[in-house]
Amino acid sequence: MKAMDLDGFVIDLDGTVFRGEQVVEGAQQAIASLRAAGKRLVFLSNRGNISREMCLAKLRRLGVEASLDEIILSSTVTARYLREHHPGCEAWTLGDWGLQDELAAGGITLAVRPELADWLVITLHETLTYHELNEAFRAVRHGARIIATNEDRSFPGEFGDHIDVAGMIGAIAASTGAQVELVVGKPSLLMAEAALAALQLPAERCLMIGDSLASDIGLGKRSGMKTALVLTGSTTTEAAGLWPARPDWIWSSIGELTTKAAVKGEGMT
Amino acid sequence: MKAMDLDGFVIDLDGTVFRGEQVVEGAQQAIASLRAAGKRLVFLSNRGNISREMCLAKLRRLGVEASLDEIILSSTVTARYLREHHPGCEAWTLGDWGLQDELAAGGITLAVRPELADWLVITLHETLTYHELNEAFRAVRHGARIIATNEDRSFPGEFGDHIDVAGMIGAIAASTGAQVELVVGKPSLLMAEAALAALQLPAERCLMIGDSLASDIGLGKRSGMKTALVLTGSTTTEAAGLWPARPDWIWSSIGELTTKAAVKGEGMT
Repeated sequence: MKAMDLDGFVIDLDGTVFRGEQVVEGAQQAIASLRAAGKRLVFLSNRGNISREMCLAKLRRLGVEASLDEIILSSTVTARYLREHHPGCEAWTLGDWGLQDELAAGGITLAVRPELADWLVITLHETLTYHELNEAFRAVRHGARIIATNEDRSFPGEFGDHIDVAGMIGAIAASTGAQVELVVGKPSLLMAEAALAALQLPAERCLMIGDSLASDIGLGKRSGMKTALVLTGSTTTEAAGLWPARPDWIWSSIGELTTKAAVKGEGMT
Repeated sequence: MKAMDLDGFVIDLDGTVFRGEQVVEGAQQAIASLRAAGKRLVFLSNRGNISREMCLAKLRRLGVEASLDEIILSSTVTARYLREHHPGCEAWTLGDWGLQDELAAGGITLAVRPELADWLVITLHETLTYHELNEAFRAVRHGARIIATNEDRSFPGEFGDHIDVAGMIGAIAASTGAQVELVVGKPSLLMAEAALAALQLPAERCLMIGDSLASDIGLGKRSGMKTALVLTGSTTTEAAGLWPARPDWIWSSIGELTTKAAVKGEGMT
């Protein structure tokens, strides 16, 4: 079987399509080829600190063709989850302003004071201050439940790894004694459901492409999609070899989707 | 037995001598009476984010007579611990600048970059930024061990409780997977040892006076001192009644030390 025989493509962003402000070589062409072949695709990212508009602007800046409907972030799915399961709830956020933007766009009311919030939504906050940490603490002390867009410990930055959402969660959990009730991001099935609903395809006709064994390959397997690991992000060839659940394909980059490794098993280590 | 029959007095600060910028009524007189009677005394505080100089300045501002040698903070004891048990070590800090000041005064070298630190010292940081959180994260990622001045979850602020050291510890522990190796503050015996060494008296000739059942009364009992709980801080009469290990005295405030409740058992609820 060739990867290109499938109908739907669920594509991770950080480490798969781009790294920081650099597009991965061959990514633009691979995505253009999918479109030319009439395939359906969505971009599925654990990023919770940006809005879809910000993400779309970035993809275009990097020369990757996309539309707003094709972008699904953990912030998008968090908004959807709260709207569906807790209609009318008010949210307080600990995270960059992109999260607030995405929640508001998703129909979630942002509380005017932390004490009034039903939910505290936590994501990465790269401009965090003590004051904001304290407001989030007060929200939980006054009864807000905790939901997190993801729980990554670190992300790669210019001078090495940076502290990620797990740090923000840890600060609030340790000081309040409260626990996170739900982590929305991959490998949570909420993300796969959102992707498959957008594609309108059964899971077995879809391919999950990503650089993380735990998040991307884990989610693809749990939800019944085919899986392709790319080595342009957080996973080395060595780590891939040690992982218990083998992806269907392992590619040096997403560029191989439409070139040499399109035959199942090829390009694997 | 009267409390004034004892020879050494170990006095907590926040909630016992002052609350924020307000001196507790009768505190100045009680301390003056101790001096007039020729008693030895030390102030023993879990504060790790200030230096002794800052603390002395505050006591004098509030009209409480004190000298630098009489002040022992958790930052002071942290510096002493590192100097004695890890001579030559280099420290990175996550906390207000008073901690750096106190470490430097205690002979601890402050690392010039987080990657070079042997120890990360964590205390309350009321002007915390993401950048500083990230530097502390990098220190631990590069092998620094973690020591904390205390692990209080919250402290009383002007508009309710504020997030305290436990939040700072939680952020680093959750994102690195590392654990705090030592918490220096009360009820750790390191604090009692420092106080008794300064007083040069056996524990049973000393009285620990404080507002916290867990920190102050707990430490006093563990170390063999007599104990007096004051109700001007974090403990209510009700909570005191439920505590398993009864203090020797319970006073409405430290003012009672030299007035009506100086007879053992009097003033108890």
